Amino acid sequence: MRNLDQYNITQAVLARLSQTPDPRLKQIMTSLVQHLHAFAREVKLTEAEWMAGIEFLTATGHKCDDQRQEFILLSDTLGLSMLTVALNNDKPAGCTEATVFGPFHVEDAPRVEHGADVANGAPGEPCQVRGSVRGLGGEAVAGAEIDVWQADADGLYDVQREGLEHAQGRAVLRSGPDGRFHFRSVVAEPYPIPDDGPVGDMLRATKRHPWRPAHLHFMIRAPGYETLVTHVFRDGDPYLDSDAVFGVRQSLVADWVKQPDGSTTLDFDFVLNPVKP
Amino acid sequence: MRNLDQYNITQAVLARLSQTPDPRLKQIMTSLVQHLHAFAREVKLTEAEWMAGIEFLTATGHKCDDQRQEFILLSDTLGLSMLTVALNNDKPAGCTEATVFGPFHVEDAPRVEHGADVANGAPGEPCQVRGSVRGLGGEAVAGAEIDVWQADADGLYDVQREGLEHAQGRAVLRSGPDGRFHFRSVVAEPYPIPDDGPVGDMLRATKRHPWRPAHLHFMIRAPGYETLVTHVFRDGDPYLDSDAVFGVRQSLVADWVKQPDGSTTLDFDFVLNPVKP
Repeated sequence: MRNLDQYNITQAVLARLSQTPDPRLKQIMTSLVQHLHAFAREVKLTEAEWMAGIEFLTATGHKCDDQRQEFILLSDTLGLSMLTVALNNDKPAGCTEATVFGPFHVEDAPRVEHGADVANGAPGEPCQVRGSVRGLGGEAVAGAEIDVWQADADGLYDVQREGLEHAQGRAVLRSGPDGRFHFRSVVAEPYPIPDDGPVGDMLRATKRHPWRPAHLHFMIRAPGYETLVTHVFRDGDPYLDSDAVFGVRQSLVADWVKQPDGSTTLDFDFVLNPVKP
Repeated sequence: MRNLDQYNITQAVLARLSQTPDPRLKQIMTSLVQHLHAFAREVKLTEAEWMAGIEFLTATGHKCDDQRQEFILLSDTLGLSMLTVALNNDKPAGCTEATVFGPFHVEDAPRVEHGADVANGAPGEPCQVRGSVRGLGGEAVAGAEIDVWQADADGLYDVQREGLEHAQGRAVLRSGPDGRFHFRSVVAEPYPIPDDGPVGDMLRATKRHPWRPAHLHFMIRAPGYETLVTHVFRDGDPYLDSDAVFGVRQSLVADWVKQPDGSTTLDFDFVLNPVKP
């Protein structure tokens, strides 16, 4: 294996991967190397461009910490996250559709009771969120774990506020015996994804805006059902057709309704896909 | 741009890149997105595998610092570095061939005079390196900057030795009026690339060894000539046919010769490609 050139090097690398014990890892690495090499050949990548790529990935890694996941942002903005969601969530008609996870979920958010104010001090217009969790057959799903998180009126998640010591705009609650739940929060607003890092540089260099339409995140888990990771988007938002991370599904767009008494309510019903027996 | 699925999302991302002002960046991003998406579709990447990829890249970024470039190691071990070298160094017959840059070059290595001991305390069997720099037409190239770096008998570059404050096994010198140069050092030995990080995990998971055949690195720069980044490999090395980074070229394999007086010498002549006028 000497004197490899631009034509035979790909087969040489694949040969080196041929002893990979895990067949799935072997399949993934084989495909990855083929596409990575095909990309470099197709654009005839220069050595300076290669180094720029190394530096971009390094800066992206250095931007990642407990509060910031720049590689998820990169995957989101290149459409890879939504593609992966689409590849893995071909649910039957009638189920709530999935969308991207995003970089702002936090494990072990505060567990709250129905009616709690999950905003917990986050700025914004108060609203009431009411919903239900049902299975595809129409059955109520009791005790489903409902993990909700959102940005506030300043377009920030709590983890983006330096020095904030407690959770704001995030909580975990459980559906009641009838599958229903409700909580208070603030109205979701559109916000730009964090663009002070390498991903922001990429967006500017490609003349793309960083905005996401207003949304609430939900992750809903219940025994016997596929876990649902999704958003509820706010109807009328100017960015619904140009979401920076390609996550909008029409079936997930809902109204935050202004009530006659001046309050605002959002109603949304989730339908889970049963796990195949 | 709502309701993107696994089939139409790629075109949607490309449309979002269509306003990129720099045509070369647009070309590279377009190709990158197409191949990245084709990879995910081809293997039907699962959400858990996607997250494993995010975590792998994050760990790779976190392993990078002033002394360690894990993304270059990753590129090297996936053959991308050597592919990029091959794509950009199609030199005329008679020129010294190029190979990978590697992650261990340091800017501003000590400048030394001919005859200096560049090992500078690095362990190993002493040797004398003698060579010349010529142009493709046979002309001596005087004053060429010769940047040399190598691992020592322990298989370590100086930057891998914690607490070492001075350069070992690296220096910059200039060719004389006749294009010749010589310096003392230690005999190069095979060594494993650093495998205590994510790239090492990848090598183990794919049952690949981390070894590189013994070599000296050279970067040679002279006005009027293409910069040459290459190695001189040591003949007889057990890893010449399975270099972990795919960098061996037969024309770069040379003898470290044991002389009758017990000393060891390496002779190698470099031929540079003139820059096209």
